[in-house]
Amino acid sequence: MAQIERVGVSLEKELLGAFDKLIAGKGYQSRSEAIRDLIRQQLSSDRLSNEKAEAVAAVVLVYDHHATAIMERLTELQHSHFLKTISSLHIHLDHHDCLEVIVLRGKVGEINRMGDKLVSIKGVKLGRINLLANKGL
Amino acid sequence: MAQIERVGVSLEKELLGAFDKLIAGKGYQSRSEAIRDLIRQQLSSDRLSNEKAEAVAAVVLVYDHHATAIMERLTELQHSHFLKTISSLHIHLDHHDCLEVIVLRGKVGEINRMGDKLVSIKGVKLGRINLLANKGL
Amino acid sequence: MAQIERVGVSLEKELLGAFDKLIAGKGYQSRSEAIRDLIRQQLSSDRLSNEKAEAVAAVVLVYDHHATAIMERLTELQHSHFLKTISSLHIHLDHHDCLEVIVLRGKVGEINRMGDKLVSIKGVKLGRINLLANKGL
Amino acid sequence: MAQIERVGVSLEKELLGAFDKLIAGKGYQSRSEAIRDLIRQQLSSDRLSNEKAEAVAAVVLVYDHHATAIMERLTELQHSHFLKTISSLHIHLDHHDCLEVIVLRGKVGEINRMGDKLVSIKGVKLGRINLLANKGL
Repeated sequence: MAQIERVGVSLEKELLGAFDKLIAGKGYQSRSEAIRDLIRQQLSSDRLSNEKAEAVAAVVLVYDHHATAIMERLTELQHSHFLKTISSLHIHLDHHDCLEVIVLRGKVGEINRMGDKLVSIKGVKLGRINLLANKGL
Repeated sequence: MAQIERVGVSLEKELLGAFDKLIAGKGYQSRSEAIRDLIRQQLSSDRLSNEKAEAVAAVVLVYDHHATAIMERLTELQHSHFLKTISSLHIHLDHHDCLEVIVLRGKVGEINRMGDKLVSIKGVKLGRINLLANKGL
Repeated sequence: MAQIERVGVSLEKELLGAFDKLIAGKGYQSRSEAIRDLIRQQLSSDRLSNEKAEAVAAVVLVYDHHATAIMERLTELQHSHFLKTISSLHIHLDHHDCLEVIVLRGKVGEINRMGDKLVSIKGVKLGRINLLANKGL
Repeated sequence: MAQIERVGVSLEKELLGAFDKLIAGKGYQSRSEAIRDLIRQQLSSDRLSNEKAEAVAAVVLVYDHHATAIMERLTELQHSHFLKTISSLHIHLDHHDCLEVIVLRGKVGEINRMGDKLVSIKGVKLGRINLLANKGL
């Protein structure tokens, strides 16, 4: 079990009131949970600005599956030496387009380079890289 | 087959040189492909600023699977009336944490509201919503 | 004087340690100050997703001052009925380029529309709109 | 005068139609101008991911001017050895809050470090750093 600490935060009454209203609208059950989420997001974005940090990434691609070279290239890239593909999910969106989610592990710099290569494949229409810090979440 | 048009673009020699270098680094095979990608991204981000537009989203969550209430809540939320979950992918990251990717369809506004609810569940440590425009990519 | 409240937040020891390290690196003197900033950023981004909210914006433009039509257009746009320009700052970057910062007030939707018009003027090379919530910061 | 080149881009009729509609809404007079802007934005964001690149930045701060230590700290930081402040603009927003825009030159890494220090000053409520690539826009 993680050890829990309790810290005090002082803030203006008006700021607190606005925050309580916002997080109630988002469905939070407690302030601590909402503040923990803010802290985790900041830690995560800080870590992911370091090229050498280990990370997990979910790469989301939309591509035209008629462009037959794509699947080969995707497979090739997933067998890179630097990254380890954990899993992937393939969805048929419509007659033309597929959505593919590829979850992989590696260093931030390598993930970004790989992401660029995936997005630049002819036929890939949109690509997003979701970097997630691996530790200390 | 999509009908292809050819348009002329005039730009400064220096700007073109810098662009060619950038896209070569990213692995693009042709300028047209790189420019099409820029155009698609802009169209997509424009569309996704409209709350009522239809979209596909890949929601990426990291959560502590010891927090047993999460899975129930995730399932509940995926059975909302407004959104249609297409598929999901579950990955065991380590002793504590799972990564879940949920792909769903619906209106941009509904997807964002649902995303807020998912992220605010106690035990969900990080959440990202990848909105992807549904049409005209 | 703003009325100050003190609230307790519970969080994992490891998360707290990582946060303390991060904010020390950024130069924060206290945890409360860092958490207040996270809360304000979230409130601000929430408010600015509402097209009708009142906001202040700092629009940053880089443009080629040889494109003589720009200054006229800039002046024209700043005399729109919907927005109120408060002040502007003009800087000579080099032989070709100027940087102009325009601070204005108005509704989020109007500011964004105006921003699009500024950026699309021929000769404007880069443009950024910094939306800042007007109240409850 | 910059030397102009003309290149051909091939793209699907439907994609072109959607793009033409979008840029007309934004107020662009020509496709070339809109595509040049997309290219410049991508070049700029690529360059600004390099810590050592030279850049110009417009830092936008909102702060409570009753917190008297701020102005001293702001002045101090602007006299850093690594960065060169070009100009600044100060606006009285209301009874409490000021908006300050500081335009400075330096390396991307130094600008980001300085930005963190500005935002973390007690009394600074919001801060944004607008990094703008210095060359080849």
